[in-house]
Amino acid sequence: MKNKLNFKTSDLEKMEKQIVVHLINSLGGFKSVALVGTSDMQGNTNLSIFSSFFHIGANPPLLGMIFRPSPPERDSMRNILDTGFYTINHINESIYRQAHQTSARYDRDVSEFEATGLSKEYKNDFFAPFVQESNIQLGIEFKEKIDLAINNTSLIIGEIVEIFIAEDCLSNDGFVNLEKANTITCSGLDSYHKTIQMDRLRYAKPNKEINSLL
Amino acid sequence: MKNKLNFKTSDLEKMEKQIVVHLINSLGGFKSVALVGTSDMQGNTNLSIFSSFFHIGANPPLLGMIFRPSPPERDSMRNILDTGFYTINHINESIYRQAHQTSARYDRDVSEFEATGLSKEYKNDFFAPFVQESNIQLGIEFKEKIDLAINNTSLIIGEIVEIFIAEDCLSNDGFVNLEKANTITCSGLDSYHKTIQMDRLRYAKPNKEINSLL
Repeated sequence: MKNKLNFKTSDLEKMEKQIVVHLINSLGGFKSVALVGTSDMQGNTNLSIFSSFFHIGANPPLLGMIFRPSPPERDSMRNILDTGFYTINHINESIYRQAHQTSARYDRDVSEFEATGLSKEYKNDFFAPFVQESNIQLGIEFKEKIDLAINNTSLIIGEIVEIFIAEDCLSNDGFVNLEKANTITCSGLDSYHKTIQMDRLRYAKPNKEINSLL
Repeated sequence: MKNKLNFKTSDLEKMEKQIVVHLINSLGGFKSVALVGTSDMQGNTNLSIFSSFFHIGANPPLLGMIFRPSPPERDSMRNILDTGFYTINHINESIYRQAHQTSARYDRDVSEFEATGLSKEYKNDFFAPFVQESNIQLGIEFKEKIDLAINNTSLIIGEIVEIFIAEDCLSNDGFVNLEKANTITCSGLDSYHKTIQMDRLRYAKPNKEINSLL
């Protein structure tokens, strides 16, 4: 067992703000990170990295994400609310630096697609642009915005209505092999990680030994 | 670019339910997975694996998680609501099989600590039990329950009030090296992964080259 440091609420209050931001962003564990593609009604596109996605349910297929407080105005959120659609595009090893760069504060008339060199892809008449370089792309229909009064963030809930998956990644049982898609994960504000699968484990039952599915 | 399979809402409706569950649980990307420790007022403990944690904010330090619909009654949620406290314990390579086993449907008088052999740890007078084998342990105070009418799940928001981190994992800038803590990630319902850090990237600015922090 390793020796542990202990911090309480009162210790956090004494720390530099930016250190607390790094610390607390790290403590939730590895995060789901992806690029959100949107467009306004005039076709001006926006692309932004987020690391706050979470599964809400499979039927209907719902994903949640958290937006930081406005103002400043959040272009992605405004486009989602105005148009009702967005895309979620997995980040892989080849594009994670460009993905990180989308977090820079560009002027509003600059599209992060052009600024970072990532490629817009429109397909199946879906309103919002996908990221062509992503091996897993989701078309999302906006469902609900819930404002979290506790810290003025917003929870956006969307339904997955279009799925594109690189064909070698889908297993017979529906499991998607994210490593074959080169999907990465992140931690804290700025750390990017690839993964090594240890195992898939069978559905657990009381008093039964745990078995591998692989 | 890899060839991609395409599924729409109408395709999902034709698939076997369990395949959709695996598929949709995979599509959000790698997830934050951890063990939630609780106790009822009589000291009967409960331990359960969750993979729906997400960062809500650093100041105050807030984490969210999603609970599936009740009934059936969710022991962890009942304990959180009754007592106001829970722990979030990172899962590492040495304990992921036991962590997975906590998802079995044990009778209510069985503690998953005893059933899986993971060790209860009480400290700093915190009400809920920590998992001794975890290298990162968080004591959480319940703040808010928001019912999501869209699919009858519940969002539980808690504030991090106690932090225990293995001492070699904390960087000067507040970043926590989750790999030194052996923290793992998961994908889908049952796949467990360790990680390899590719880089930490500097805060992005328009028209500046992206630099490594390492």
